[in-house]
Amino acid sequence: MAIFASIAASLDGFIRTESGDMAWLNGAMRRDEDYGMANTMQRAGAYVLGARTYRESVATFGGGMTTSPTYVLTHAAPDEAPSGVTFTSEDVRTVVMTAQSATDKDVNVFGGGDVLTQALAADALDELMVALIPVLLGGGTRLFGELQESKRLSLTDCTSFKSGIVLLRYAST
Amino acid sequence: MAIFASIAASLDGFIRTESGDMAWLNGAMRRDEDYGMANTMQRAGAYVLGARTYRESVATFGGGMTTSPTYVLTHAAPDEAPSGVTFTSEDVRTVVMTAQSATDKDVNVFGGGDVLTQALAADALDELMVALIPVLLGGGTRLFGELQESKRLSLTDCTSFKSGIVLLRYAST
Repeated sequence: MAIFASIAASLDGFIRTESGDMAWLNGAMRRDEDYGMANTMQRAGAYVLGARTYRESVATFGGGMTTSPTYVLTHAAPDEAPSGVTFTSEDVRTVVMTAQSATDKDVNVFGGGDVLTQALAADALDELMVALIPVLLGGGTRLFGELQESKRLSLTDCTSFKSGIVLLRYAST
Repeated sequence: MAIFASIAASLDGFIRTESGDMAWLNGAMRRDEDYGMANTMQRAGAYVLGARTYRESVATFGGGMTTSPTYVLTHAAPDEAPSGVTFTSEDVRTVVMTAQSATDKDVNVFGGGDVLTQALAADALDELMVALIPVLLGGGTRLFGELQESKRLSLTDCTSFKSGIVLLRYAST
């Protein structure tokens, strides 16, 4: 069982345009290339994500993002939560541990950047996969948030595709 | 003859810490790995860089960064310029062309992020090499500035090293 994150980012480090338009990403990917996304979906038995990412996911996927246990980090929990969703203001390390105890599979730290970075800083992420898209977006939502201290990672795999997408896989050192 | 940029950046997209401390970079590189830096130095017959990067280079290298023609983009040119250095407020594309006319070798767009990004946006950069360091710096000077429009690049090479450093090479499409 592992805590992992898997996310596509532009070369300049954005995961979402200001408008949420996904053309930059869909236009870069090729149908004949396997970026391991299906595997990522199958690995995950629980999700941890931030409040904004949760709202965006609900807007995108129409409420039922997943039937797996989902933990949403927020300081403003709504009174009611959909089935399977837990709103929590606990620190990310605690939440990740709770998520891991809820599944025999892996836990997907789904983002956004602040949650991902907090998880990395708290040594609560075992594995980070970044699909680096050969595009400069120039603005939007950043993959990584700010850190008080620098954090060394260990590269475990690097695969490039004809599309120009580079899959980077890092382990927490 | 080509216009190129070659720069080391942390995974979260910074090229310099707030303090200018280089331990993050020196600690990540290994003596037995060739990141092509010597080749980069030999290729360049002229340099284009921003005012802040120029000041930092002067502070780091003690005035004589290079004997090659050097063009510094600035809106506040000093009255006197050191030998070989030209301060200019022209747009980056014009300056790059001027630099190319001053040498039979390649032109190195030395940074910082704003100059690099302006050059990319103006299609004035043929080749971008990024040495991606397996470190999250958490803050500092960013590799890329903001862009009004997204910009597609073409991956031409991707090499990973035991140190975890990944050399990415992109061409302007």
